[in-house]
Amino acid sequence: MYSNDDFALMTRALALAERGMYTTTPNPRVGCVLVRDGRVIGEGFTQPAGSDHAEVRALKDARARGIDVRGASAYVTLEPCSHVGRTPACAHTLVQAGIARVVAAMEDPNPRVSGRGLEILRAAGIEVRCGLLESAARELNIGFVKRMIQGRPWVRLKVAASLDGRTALANGRSQWLTGPEARRDGHRWRARACAVLTGVGTVRADDPQLTVRAIETPRQPQRVLLDSKLAASPEAKIFDDGAALVICASDDGDAAPRAARLRERGAEVVALPDADGRVDLAAALDLLGAREINELHLEAGYKLNGAWLRAGLVDELLVYMAPSLLGNHALGMFGLPALDTLDARIKLHFHAVEAVGSDLRLLLRPTDGDETVPAILQPAVPTPPRA
Amino acid sequence: MYSNDDFALMTRALALAERGMYTTTPNPRVGCVLVRDGRVIGEGFTQPAGSDHAEVRALKDARARGIDVRGASAYVTLEPCSHVGRTPACAHTLVQAGIARVVAAMEDPNPRVSGRGLEILRAAGIEVRCGLLESAARELNIGFVKRMIQGRPWVRLKVAASLDGRTALANGRSQWLTGPEARRDGHRWRARACAVLTGVGTVRADDPQLTVRAIETPRQPQRVLLDSKLAASPEAKIFDDGAALVICASDDGDAAPRAARLRERGAEVVALPDADGRVDLAAALDLLGAREINELHLEAGYKLNGAWLRAGLVDELLVYMAPSLLGNHALGMFGLPALDTLDARIKLHFHAVEAVGSDLRLLLRPTDGDETVPAILQPAVPTPPRA
Repeated sequence: MYSNDDFALMTRALALAERGMYTTTPNPRVGCVLVRDGRVIGEGFTQPAGSDHAEVRALKDARARGIDVRGASAYVTLEPCSHVGRTPACAHTLVQAGIARVVAAMEDPNPRVSGRGLEILRAAGIEVRCGLLESAARELNIGFVKRMIQGRPWVRLKVAASLDGRTALANGRSQWLTGPEARRDGHRWRARACAVLTGVGTVRADDPQLTVRAIETPRQPQRVLLDSKLAASPEAKIFDDGAALVICASDDGDAAPRAARLRERGAEVVALPDADGRVDLAAALDLLGAREINELHLEAGYKLNGAWLRAGLVDELLVYMAPSLLGNHALGMFGLPALDTLDARIKLHFHAVEAVGSDLRLLLRPTDGDETVPAILQPAVPTPPRA
Repeated sequence: MYSNDDFALMTRALALAERGMYTTTPNPRVGCVLVRDGRVIGEGFTQPAGSDHAEVRALKDARARGIDVRGASAYVTLEPCSHVGRTPACAHTLVQAGIARVVAAMEDPNPRVSGRGLEILRAAGIEVRCGLLESAARELNIGFVKRMIQGRPWVRLKVAASLDGRTALANGRSQWLTGPEARRDGHRWRARACAVLTGVGTVRADDPQLTVRAIETPRQPQRVLLDSKLAASPEAKIFDDGAALVICASDDGDAAPRAARLRERGAEVVALPDADGRVDLAAALDLLGAREINELHLEAGYKLNGAWLRAGLVDELLVYMAPSLLGNHALGMFGLPALDTLDARIKLHFHAVEAVGSDLRLLLRPTDGDETVPAILQPAVPTPPRA
């Protein structure tokens, strides 16, 4: 059994971890709290990649306060790492520091190293517990967890729609369907992603920058464009920072000159064709996973949205629902084939529903089989990822 | 200032009033609590029309307990009536009973008698306060309030849709898009309405009974069919109880034989044409208001839904949103003309959002002008109208 103090301290560690929301990637967001005699003596969260992990940060914090950490308890939101990478292994660091007890929220999701950090601690005589507030810890690093297990990013499809499921008028107009709070919130979700992906249709229709602007962030996500035939104009804004990744079906033959022009603009062009001459979406995910993309944020039109859904590659829908009606002539959300039976519909469940300004933010995830999951409402006060 | 006791007692009176949810119409749902020396000595709520009002019921309750009500305080969710109708005026009854203090949640909404009941009480030397928890009291009788003021029922449009705003497959299939909890909840909202209205398209496609079956109710709402050309089959289930009201554009000439057949089935047929030879929706509301319909529950297809919306006659949308996707080929929610600008969209606000089983129940109401209203979430535990 965990004590109330255990819960409170891990909750604090999770809050610390959240402060790395926009900065720790490709590493996970981790928080650490050091406690001795019921008093917090050190706190830390993961710094940008190559710098301190949360545990080291917390130890330094305690030492900066002039406090001896020997005999202290450490609350960490993820199993301390067991491998020497860009930084020393945190498990060894905790042992050397003389920590007496470690409470972890979850094991390392990487099946190849899962449990090793805890073993190192136990072998050194440290009392170890694992699993406190595991679900919250997992959500915080949902992209990292998926990439460690499957080698692919967590795919979050964002769409803004009216109550009647329409994203734009028949003439293409969509600004502004949702309110300023929802648009700002949408940029928070962009900012926490490692990459933002759109399609050539959206680039041609809206010419988006696809950057995070509505909130402050220390790093911009990688921009990714799916463009089978390299039909996007090299003047499109998505190429302005000279670092876009363009995934096409062919960059040679007829397409070679267009690929060359995009490369002149600083874009990387990669061909990942499927058997039908389109971009192989699963291969695109493999590529992005290999490049350490934890969370992939999709913002595209109904055609590409439908293609991702049909491929069964979407992990989560992030829907901003505006309290307005556009009517049946307006554009819909998802291009899917006509269904013969209701049983063929795409089944999801409401993972979270929150009010954001005058709009609703809905998070939905696929439901396996006929499983019925109760709908979930969150408190009326929106709690988006921290800025 | 009201005391905590005042709030608690009026909350109790509101809970009593809710117990008349399916039975008091066309009268309002009213609750009454009698209190003396801090002790509840009598409680009551409005009985079916022609029987006791809430105040009389509470007085009888106290007397049945052998308690003298003289000097007591009465908490009532609506101003005591001042007119002798099917029952004596409650204001006089309270005076005669020797009540010393009356706290009312709201004045009578009928502008012709508003405040008269309170005047009678004050003239008799009773201490009177009005306005405690007025908003909740108003919501409880939102249909009665509108009818008293405008002579028309409160129009609540119910629709079940997928997340992407689709009500049925292109082939018409829609059973079952939402879960059993949502369907049962939908019957609660039918049951509280005085009338349930659909269109000929729905009758031909689905042949609904349009009765309350999923919950127990002591009375069925009036069934109303809008059928401009009297095209519905006389064998349709909506006529089975022999009490449907059919509103058409013409019941003579070519239509006379069809009207006759429906009348043989027990239906009442009324012609209310507009200038275009369709049913005049506003005139239909006037008719239903004159027949003391407080809440009108619309369950129709996207065409008739769109017509009510275009006419600006919908007071509230009741949307059951299923966590599933049907895609762009499926049928939409509302037939509205194509819009040129987003500013022409129908603007609403979220009045309440609740989880019902695995679905969401959304209540929306029209928003005037550019007014921005924060979205509202309710607690995760659904609190539908009481069965």
